[in-house]
Amino acid sequence: MPDLLVAVPDAAMRDRLSPPPSGVELVVWALGSEPVAERFDLLVLPYMIAAPALAGLAGQRASVVQAQMLGYDGVAEHLPPGHVYCNAVDVHEAATGELALALILASQRGIPRFVTAARDGEWAHERHPGLAMQRVLLLGTGGVGRQVAQRLAPFDVELTRVGRTARSDDLGAVHAWGELAELLPEADIVVLAVPLDDSTRGMVDDTFLAAMAPGALLVNVARGPVVDTAALTRAVASGRLRAAMDVTDPEPLPPDHPLWTLPGVLISPHVGGDVGSMSRRMDRLVREQMALLLDGAPPKNSVLET
Amino acid sequence: MPDLLVAVPDAAMRDRLSPPPSGVELVVWALGSEPVAERFDLLVLPYMIAAPALAGLAGQRASVVQAQMLGYDGVAEHLPPGHVYCNAVDVHEAATGELALALILASQRGIPRFVTAARDGEWAHERHPGLAMQRVLLLGTGGVGRQVAQRLAPFDVELTRVGRTARSDDLGAVHAWGELAELLPEADIVVLAVPLDDSTRGMVDDTFLAAMAPGALLVNVARGPVVDTAALTRAVASGRLRAAMDVTDPEPLPPDHPLWTLPGVLISPHVGGDVGSMSRRMDRLVREQMALLLDGAPPKNSVLET
Repeated sequence: MPDLLVAVPDAAMRDRLSPPPSGVELVVWALGSEPVAERFDLLVLPYMIAAPALAGLAGQRASVVQAQMLGYDGVAEHLPPGHVYCNAVDVHEAATGELALALILASQRGIPRFVTAARDGEWAHERHPGLAMQRVLLLGTGGVGRQVAQRLAPFDVELTRVGRTARSDDLGAVHAWGELAELLPEADIVVLAVPLDDSTRGMVDDTFLAAMAPGALLVNVARGPVVDTAALTRAVASGRLRAAMDVTDPEPLPPDHPLWTLPGVLISPHVGGDVGSMSRRMDRLVREQMALLLDGAPPKNSVLET
Repeated sequence: MPDLLVAVPDAAMRDRLSPPPSGVELVVWALGSEPVAERFDLLVLPYMIAAPALAGLAGQRASVVQAQMLGYDGVAEHLPPGHVYCNAVDVHEAATGELALALILASQRGIPRFVTAARDGEWAHERHPGLAMQRVLLLGTGGVGRQVAQRLAPFDVELTRVGRTARSDDLGAVHAWGELAELLPEADIVVLAVPLDDSTRGMVDDTFLAAMAPGALLVNVARGPVVDTAALTRAVASGRLRAAMDVTDPEPLPPDHPLWTLPGVLISPHVGGDVGSMSRRMDRLVREQMALLLDGAPPKNSVLET
């Protein structure tokens, strides 16, 4: 009998982690199929699993449940009792910050326009605003927000950061959410990098959007429900605002949703963390958790216990 | 009679520069129309003027000809005698470096794929390589090359720079062009930021492209003729390489050229420097030249005299 029984969601991860450390038995099990054991010491969830699917853990006694996602909205409501849930800190933040810059630069430099024009062989020479000298308002001072701020640094922007409370950190001043009404009209680009919780759900509503400057760009690399989709659709359809988003509400966005084809909208299909380097970062985290559990230590990144 | 007669190519620039400094008379004249005077102390060329059009200055005695472009390939062959030609240093480099990052990030994160999928309302979730941990080979250590290097800094890449000769500068080591055969196979992304001259014309040929690693991305923010277009088209059509380019040869690229629609190709229509902030930077340079000439000093950025 091994010291540690570890379930991973696919053979690819098993192969990458093989051979496991001494005392660890690695098995493949994804929720939804017949469990291969009654109890796992560590269970790695599939990437992008929807919170309601966590009900599939009922009857299981997985001491530690390791997600491959950073956000854990909905987990508390759906995770059956008896589990410690750990999120994927340091796996996706850098890649999500990188995608935020990809969305910002593509939107500000006209890349979607050029891609569309290329179908017709059209040399669409025209002036786009660019990123230099733009005023960027960044909401969120956590892991993703920091990665966005660091990548914006060499682009000669005027960056203003906003968090729950006014303070200073190593990257400079942080304004409080209460100042948003004054800050929003001054921004050319507003970037959402906040967690989804009761305080942020629907925070980007008609009032928020109306406070943004005409022509400004809203960038969402947080979670879809932070934005009121109907309100955003109206603001973009009127031509008043532009948008670039990696997340939508609902997700996937239905094929006939007007946001897909409105001018000034760029949508990536929730690929913030989904890059070639993700597997390497995720494997590193699982190895760290195995080492901690073998040592009898608590796992890292535990965000809730049921 | 003014101390300085200055011609600018359009009313917009005249208005932005008005009122001019004391002693300066500002007139609007673009090559191709009847000249409004026989002699200008300073003549600002239209943006993106083709070198052969400089023949329109024959018979003029413009002491100083100020271009709005950085590259001046072909100028020596076409500029009539009697002129000092100044290029637009510090006007476009930052914006071109910014566009290089836009092209790199868009290509590495799948933005062209997402834009195309959006037409059909398709949620095209798939993994793209990303930029982090990629090996970037940057050719060119001048103004644009420096701006590219500075903007790549926070993206966690392995950057190798190449110039005419091996040396070190404040950004680190520079390899010599002679090392390219060894360096090219090791790069995931190759960025061209070299001037166009006899030594760089056609340097990216079949041999260069064959030395690149399968799946690698070629980024051209230099000049179209640095790349052998037919060779690049073959390399991309075979699926072996990807490309993102702001410049082509010929330019504009003809509507029926295969590069427009080949998978793995992203083309922007020579907009490297063409952003909202360009006018402000150009105006600043023209004001500096007026001040120098009023003082009887030589103009800045003079690159050739005819």
